[in-house]
Amino acid sequence: MCRWISYLGSPLPIEDVIVRPDHSLIDQSLTARDLFLPTYAPAAQFRDRAFPTNGDGFGVAWSGRGGALGQYRQTTPAWDSQNLRHLAAQIESGCFLAHVRAAPGGTIAEQNAHPFVHGGWMFQHNGEIGGFDAIKRDLTLDVDPDLYPHILGNGDTEVCFFLALTYGLADDPVAALTRMVARVERARAERGVAAAFRATICASDGDRLVVLRWASPDGGAAGPSLFHSIGPETLHIGEGAVEQLPPDAQLVVSEPLELHWSRRHWEEIPEGTIGVFERGVAPVFSRLAP
Amino acid sequence: MCRWISYLGSPLPIEDVIVRPDHSLIDQSLTARDLFLPTYAPAAQFRDRAFPTNGDGFGVAWSGRGGALGQYRQTTPAWDSQNLRHLAAQIESGCFLAHVRAAPGGTIAEQNAHPFVHGGWMFQHNGEIGGFDAIKRDLTLDVDPDLYPHILGNGDTEVCFFLALTYGLADDPVAALTRMVARVERARAERGVAAAFRATICASDGDRLVVLRWASPDGGAAGPSLFHSIGPETLHIGEGAVEQLPPDAQLVVSEPLELHWSRRHWEEIPEGTIGVFERGVAPVFSRLAP
Amino acid sequence: MCRWISYLGSPLPIEDVIVRPDHSLIDQSLTARDLFLPTYAPAAQFRDRAFPTNGDGFGVAWSGRGGALGQYRQTTPAWDSQNLRHLAAQIESGCFLAHVRAAPGGTIAEQNAHPFVHGGWMFQHNGEIGGFDAIKRDLTLDVDPDLYPHILGNGDTEVCFFLALTYGLADDPVAALTRMVARVERARAERGVAAAFRATICASDGDRLVVLRWASPDGGAAGPSLFHSIGPETLHIGEGAVEQLPPDAQLVVSEPLELHWSRRHWEEIPEGTIGVFERGVAPVFSRLAP
Amino acid sequence: MCRWISYLGSPLPIEDVIVRPDHSLIDQSLTARDLFLPTYAPAAQFRDRAFPTNGDGFGVAWSGRGGALGQYRQTTPAWDSQNLRHLAAQIESGCFLAHVRAAPGGTIAEQNAHPFVHGGWMFQHNGEIGGFDAIKRDLTLDVDPDLYPHILGNGDTEVCFFLALTYGLADDPVAALTRMVARVERARAERGVAAAFRATICASDGDRLVVLRWASPDGGAAGPSLFHSIGPETLHIGEGAVEQLPPDAQLVVSEPLELHWSRRHWEEIPEGTIGVFERGVAPVFSRLAP
Repeated sequence: MCRWISYLGSPLPIEDVIVRPDHSLIDQSLTARDLFLPTYAPAAQFRDRAFPTNGDGFGVAWSGRGGALGQYRQTTPAWDSQNLRHLAAQIESGCFLAHVRAAPGGTIAEQNAHPFVHGGWMFQHNGEIGGFDAIKRDLTLDVDPDLYPHILGNGDTEVCFFLALTYGLADDPVAALTRMVARVERARAERGVAAAFRATICASDGDRLVVLRWASPDGGAAGPSLFHSIGPETLHIGEGAVEQLPPDAQLVVSEPLELHWSRRHWEEIPEGTIGVFERGVAPVFSRLAP
Repeated sequence: MCRWISYLGSPLPIEDVIVRPDHSLIDQSLTARDLFLPTYAPAAQFRDRAFPTNGDGFGVAWSGRGGALGQYRQTTPAWDSQNLRHLAAQIESGCFLAHVRAAPGGTIAEQNAHPFVHGGWMFQHNGEIGGFDAIKRDLTLDVDPDLYPHILGNGDTEVCFFLALTYGLADDPVAALTRMVARVERARAERGVAAAFRATICASDGDRLVVLRWASPDGGAAGPSLFHSIGPETLHIGEGAVEQLPPDAQLVVSEPLELHWSRRHWEEIPEGTIGVFERGVAPVFSRLAP
Repeated sequence: MCRWISYLGSPLPIEDVIVRPDHSLIDQSLTARDLFLPTYAPAAQFRDRAFPTNGDGFGVAWSGRGGALGQYRQTTPAWDSQNLRHLAAQIESGCFLAHVRAAPGGTIAEQNAHPFVHGGWMFQHNGEIGGFDAIKRDLTLDVDPDLYPHILGNGDTEVCFFLALTYGLADDPVAALTRMVARVERARAERGVAAAFRATICASDGDRLVVLRWASPDGGAAGPSLFHSIGPETLHIGEGAVEQLPPDAQLVVSEPLELHWSRRHWEEIPEGTIGVFERGVAPVFSRLAP
Repeated sequence: MCRWISYLGSPLPIEDVIVRPDHSLIDQSLTARDLFLPTYAPAAQFRDRAFPTNGDGFGVAWSGRGGALGQYRQTTPAWDSQNLRHLAAQIESGCFLAHVRAAPGGTIAEQNAHPFVHGGWMFQHNGEIGGFDAIKRDLTLDVDPDLYPHILGNGDTEVCFFLALTYGLADDPVAALTRMVARVERARAERGVAAAFRATICASDGDRLVVLRWASPDGGAAGPSLFHSIGPETLHIGEGAVEQLPPDAQLVVSEPLELHWSRRHWEEIPEGTIGVFERGVAPVFSRLAP
């Protein structure tokens, strides 16, 4: 129940995609348009039950100085954050992940804010593991005991991340993420959890983006929305103006960064798909078959 | 651009009106229904341009132990606050003000959170002084120099409060608030400010509520919504259940605390009105004629 | 590496022991005197290596309205908190726990702030489980699976609390706490942890205080300081003035609440001791023999 | 009652002076050594009344991308901040100011955190205007009315900054700062304020540092400590290791960044002095004669 974006391409100041587009991630923190929550009661009053608010924190992680990963997370809303605006104007990167959080009923803490960073990987998620309390212990026990003490928050995403790390994220990210999804589904089955696992996830080592979109086949609900950019890299920044991105820019987003977007520029990533974005080549998608 | 409630009556735990009703102040922090913002761009996507989000802080002030005023304010959203829920279950009062803030472009700080408390008075506001930057200095210079150093925030509401204190809020609250509104309107005229002063305000000394609703006559925009409760004091708390308030309960609210409210229970307070609520008697309204 | 106090007796506003004494808990947040940290490098410059600063958060839990437990926690320092002062002046209780945190290298989060509250019990701790990362998983696996999802933070204290709950804190608190200490010591032994488990702990159901002081026998370091009040219940509040507490007041504290205290008023609780404080009777101490 | 550092020289990651030295600014947030506060009661228990704690916030401002000024400020202590460590490792600059705040009795707010940034200038301060409440209004009225609405906090430093901007900081910083000091002293005299104005201040436009050290001649107290680096640019970073700074590095600091420093490397700046540091030349000091 969040919104995120991931960028891969020539370095640019992160404000170019986080702040300046007319439906930037900051705009999505206050007025998201495609966050459809059919079963979430507070969404009932909105058109198509699209919930607008992602006010439970913000985070960004990036490939930075000397290839090291930078990270900045806050628990307060993105929309009025002066620090966020200043940092977004100053930080340049060729690979970054950014996230605004909606965590109804969850724990608001820096340790629960995305993106998570560990072992040279960044990780962010939109969605939820339904009935997580019932399977949290099972899943956590599967985490490598050496990694276990590095789990600092209490949410579902971080457990998914550490499972993926345990399953070899660094060696074969597609296999590791697939196995993680399979493990969650097995736990749901073993504990009789009816609520779905719904997820759009991005993992990155600073050189490539590995993204997936998933909804439990038996869960009765669609997966969260996910798009990637194609074609001419321009972004509407308001008042009819556009901004030019580097020609090699690749973006993966929960919803397009523009209020009036076209399918020529943004293509939906189908459910049950895992995709790999590398520099200078077209993304490769395959079926996510856990 | 906020939502508030004020209560006067027999003491009750403040959660009974802040948390439990099905459209409580907490609910209004995330999904307000009557916050019509015709000129605020982010409101454009919502039905009737009713903006849902009041996520820039929460505060409550109350008549407490030995008649002293208590105060609690936070800059983070009300909707997920554990502290707020715990405190609301524990604090009992027969007179309290509570507020959720929306401050687009403003400064997020505890010092700017409502209700303000000074000199035995509590004060909260929904609305704005249009073009405040142009008249802030004029208005602030009118504040009693002895009171001046007690202004701790940087917003319009606190200046209104200290003007009212300067003009004798403790001696004659209706006259002081009226003079404050007149002073703001004079400043607007002197500096040629076109944007309106729109306000619903509540001031209280712990024994009575003095409330007003105002919009600059030349401003072209209606004042923010304001209601008071009448008749049988029950509140819908969800699932068809109701909660009984004390028979002497009086509520003044930005919008009714119930999703499906009736005009038998909630009466709108007209624009250009100032009202005084005292214990055990019907409220007295008069024309606000600055 | 914290300071705490616990109170049992006739109800009083909690400011009487948290704020007003001349070495109150707030004063201890900035200038503690007895927090001896022989192995903590930043303590080297202070007299007797007594570290003064407990600035990583504050919390209070109390027996409140209708016997329900209240809780308020913040991650910011106690010393300059306006909310803390206001709440302390308003909240009255006959049984409360309050804590200022020092968490060098730890995670600053509301979820890690003491006192913890669950299942009708409050729990706070000063000290640390040395080498916690090495045994955290073992200990956590011993927590009742039904309780497991209620662990929200990532620190050692919360695991101790949930172990005690698992071991029957509600039925026999002395036995449950003793078994918890034994479990930690066994884990240390099994994993070859040399660093000591050092703890002063208070658990309370709102009617009694159960306190313990412990240091691993093989750890080579003394346990943290712990005192309880005896005799005439007066507290120095500065400028030669004293404040009278109720005659039945019982206090247990990390360090006395007065700058110039006497052993007639404050008695040290020996290491390896567990004590039970009930209303109206003298505390009962026994040897903590895990 | 704070600690600050300013850097001018070839670009380096700011962690090299903020985090890595063995008495870095982060270390000074928890265990400052030269913050002598002869009249501050809580300092009484420390050796030479040197108060160790600067836990009321942290900030950094820097000359950044394209010469624009970056800014990051937080109200929570520097010592345990993960964001601070991450950002310090990523941000490179050839001119930056950083500050840890101690604000006993003051308002903890991002708007009060140093460095302040406005109109292309950065500004930070250690010290205080004694009796500020008595002269705040006089001083604030002297601020250019066009600048007035940009004052967002409520502290003395920001007023000093806006006075300096009003007096032509951009045109002649030495003259503007001198006039600001004179204005404060005149206000003290006019209102009969006995408490001293004590200050070490740094203003910078990203190309040079203008620093001053001042104590009211009639105030009876010395000015806060201030040092600048000279000679070989190495910093002790613990365990006998040293770090090499760029040969053109110039540092001005409240106290040396090393636990065991020598007067060959750090020279005290005398009271009543104003100094200008420019790239590649020796600093120029003159008498501050307001």
